[in-house]
Amino acid sequence: MDFKSYIRDVPDFPKKGIVFKDITPLLQDYKALKAASEHLVDGLLETKIDKVVGMESRGFLFGPMLAERLQAGFVPIRKPGKLPYKTLSEAYDLEYGTDTLEIHIDGIEKGEKVLIHDDVLATGGTAMAAGKLVEKLGGEIVQFSFLIELSFLNGREKIKSHPVNSLITY
Amino acid sequence: MDFKSYIRDVPDFPKKGIVFKDITPLLQDYKALKAASEHLVDGLLETKIDKVVGMESRGFLFGPMLAERLQAGFVPIRKPGKLPYKTLSEAYDLEYGTDTLEIHIDGIEKGEKVLIHDDVLATGGTAMAAGKLVEKLGGEIVQFSFLIELSFLNGREKIKSHPVNSLITY
Repeated sequence: MDFKSYIRDVPDFPKKGIVFKDITPLLQDYKALKAASEHLVDGLLETKIDKVVGMESRGFLFGPMLAERLQAGFVPIRKPGKLPYKTLSEAYDLEYGTDTLEIHIDGIEKGEKVLIHDDVLATGGTAMAAGKLVEKLGGEIVQFSFLIELSFLNGREKIKSHPVNSLITY
Repeated sequence: MDFKSYIRDVPDFPKKGIVFKDITPLLQDYKALKAASEHLVDGLLETKIDKVVGMESRGFLFGPMLAERLQAGFVPIRKPGKLPYKTLSEAYDLEYGTDTLEIHIDGIEKGEKVLIHDDVLATGGTAMAAGKLVEKLGGEIVQFSFLIELSFLNGREKIKSHPVNSLITY
């Protein structure tokens, strides 16, 4: 399937000069949605995965689907103050300033095998912070998984200590 | 399956006096995650559904899974400014002030059959606004679907012109 034909370029979003990769045409087409989630777990169906971790908000779209395909649980990583129970936090750098991600302290047990999923790999800051949260809880990262990789931003470099899988690369 | 045993009460979240229903124990258990998504489409497998609409952020968790089960596409409804393409907006009342939801104008085609899903039915304001967006685009609402219904808040009253299905009721 030509997945790129389901991704829409939206110029000047979220700000002037950025061309945003809009995944909603892919989501709203049943065959593309199903095929994308199947392809994302290709090569992992014989691998033990205990938890799929997905980042708010668009990592929630495919995260639980991948978890079900891998017979794993799903664990959300969210912005500060959104998770109701006890959390671990990890700050990461943005272009200007910093941001923070949180995970529930009981989301992952020591030794569990973890797939980390998000919709887009851009600069890799979010993915790296998510990886640190998983490892602080004793989880072992099996793979970083993305629907889209913006390879010109070199995000892969930040998380190269683990396997990185992207369905669509620009 | 006793789904309530996978829901955790978190007192005083997001503010004092509120007991928050935390769905993360259900998400992180593979069997509960799978069973919940199966039960949510019970009774709909013979019904034509073209699109599942899910509200940001927690409606994204089960929305695409339900869409796949129903052989439908998934359409996100988001807070203002989050969707990159052209949108329709709908304001709705909160306890103090108003909030707004948006949907892409090409998310639903006239005459399409739509399932509207969110994690929790509380006062019904969000669900009602989502329903208006779907109907403005010419969609026909087949069902409002929730993982949890807080029946003491009477949200069902606001959307009673359409079938309402909840997996877990308090």
